[in-house]
Amino acid sequence: MEMSLKDKSIAVIGLGLLGTSLAMALKGKCRELTGWSRQEKVRRYVLDNGIVDNAPESPSEAVCNADITVLCLPIPVICDFLRQHAGDFKSGAVVTDIGSVKGIIVRTGEEALTPSGVKFVGSHPMAGTEKTGAFAAFPGLYDHAEVFITPTENTDESALSSVYALWSAVGTAIRVITPDYHDRLVAHTSHISHLLALGITLSVLNEDDPQLRRDRFSGCATGFRDTSRIASSSPSMWREIIEANQQPVLEAIAEFERYFNEIKELIKSGRFDEFEKLFARGKELRDSWIAYKNSEHNCKW
Amino acid sequence: MEMSLKDKSIAVIGLGLLGTSLAMALKGKCRELTGWSRQEKVRRYVLDNGIVDNAPESPSEAVCNADITVLCLPIPVICDFLRQHAGDFKSGAVVTDIGSVKGIIVRTGEEALTPSGVKFVGSHPMAGTEKTGAFAAFPGLYDHAEVFITPTENTDESALSSVYALWSAVGTAIRVITPDYHDRLVAHTSHISHLLALGITLSVLNEDDPQLRRDRFSGCATGFRDTSRIASSSPSMWREIIEANQQPVLEAIAEFERYFNEIKELIKSGRFDEFEKLFARGKELRDSWIAYKNSEHNCKW
Repeated sequence: MEMSLKDKSIAVIGLGLLGTSLAMALKGKCRELTGWSRQEKVRRYVLDNGIVDNAPESPSEAVCNADITVLCLPIPVICDFLRQHAGDFKSGAVVTDIGSVKGIIVRTGEEALTPSGVKFVGSHPMAGTEKTGAFAAFPGLYDHAEVFITPTENTDESALSSVYALWSAVGTAIRVITPDYHDRLVAHTSHISHLLALGITLSVLNEDDPQLRRDRFSGCATGFRDTSRIASSSPSMWREIIEANQQPVLEAIAEFERYFNEIKELIKSGRFDEFEKLFARGKELRDSWIAYKNSEHNCKW
Repeated sequence: MEMSLKDKSIAVIGLGLLGTSLAMALKGKCRELTGWSRQEKVRRYVLDNGIVDNAPESPSEAVCNADITVLCLPIPVICDFLRQHAGDFKSGAVVTDIGSVKGIIVRTGEEALTPSGVKFVGSHPMAGTEKTGAFAAFPGLYDHAEVFITPTENTDESALSSVYALWSAVGTAIRVITPDYHDRLVAHTSHISHLLALGITLSVLNEDDPQLRRDRFSGCATGFRDTSRIASSSPSMWREIIEANQQPVLEAIAEFERYFNEIKELIKSGRFDEFEKLFARGKELRDSWIAYKNSEHNCKW
């Protein structure tokens, strides 16, 4: 999979936190780096600060000479861009993305680009902070981040190598899996947690009676704070993710419900010895997960 | 409600984190302070360090002269102690506790103690750390902590005043509510979060297939970490709490399920505009809860 980026021209489309941080991390590692944002002030910022070599106003101009293009846009915008700009890429070019759902993007990319001889390979870097936008970007965002690359049976070997080289260059840990496996995996490891956080927030805080509402607000402490934290995420972003990953999310919901119903039945029927055993099993799993995470890169979770 | 502890003899029964910290915070504020632990080394520790004035081996001896006794024991042990030692308290004495469920304890306390002219009033201080035991105790544990005091229609005014004075003396913020209201409140604000954390941990990590298990362990990040955090709590303690609060917990589960089913139906039927609106409502509630918490005592949540 060894391949150098040194002779490649790379375009980063979309200069939010992830796109701008990627440009910062790629700077100096490729022949030419082009950035595109629909906002003039962002194009000026990345040019003035030497984050990119070029920042044309037109997205067509930004991608037309690129050997590798990375679409750093919201999921539906990635799909729209692939359809609208399919004819703007040069033949033989490689296109990837950073979307956190892969099936719908990879299908759209292959359908839109294959007729023009352009190669699409999906990527999903697990990176981010609580901030958004170009001005929150920093070059170390991808250090040790996990990236999924999701080729299909249609994927060209050399296109896969280019995308692999791209993510290697910015210091990520790469896993190659299929788009469907990816989407089922993240439905479990990430998407369903957001639905639970939303559900607990609504069921605890969405209370009309003023006295009860005040008591609920006051009575919630650190347990609730952490269980509900990701309910404070972006509603539009999570709508896009859940909409793009509908079926795997419904499967993850069903799997959660199986366990939650088991917990409920143990409580309802007073089988508290079994409840305690199940809780001990959960604690054992979570403690071993924390130990696993702490053993990776010497991080402290 | 003003009353001094200066002329009172106080007994703290059970010298774990909460009991020992309470003794430390009460030191010098009452006439006499007695501690009891079933562990000889803990009795020696609190005596040798001047945390209490007396630490007799016998629990009967520890409570027999106390004006106020505070039972700092696990929930079922509080109930057992009340039944077994009802005859050991002096007539007119006041007994309270620190159990995190109130209905069952208050009923047990009133039934067991009223015949001997001893007054029971339940308390629940919302205090603790991730540590346990006397050696983790510190005098500031109760500073600004919220305490629920839960009188009933049977509660004597002067007994309520004594318990109020006790918790005032250690710097807590006091709320007086009924045991039933308390138990429904904490079922929502605390207990159900532990069941969700357990459910998500089991549904994500309890996977037999080695490859999928490895991918789940690897793929989980900060969202899962926080949503699942309290699944690492003590299984025996949470068994005791849930067992003692069975019906309110089942009601809180039902309320959560109503919202979670609404979320699921929106996803299943593809009504993503409504899903986004509901997510925005959850975010608004949680963000306003965080702002409310940050405005209390200038804490940073």
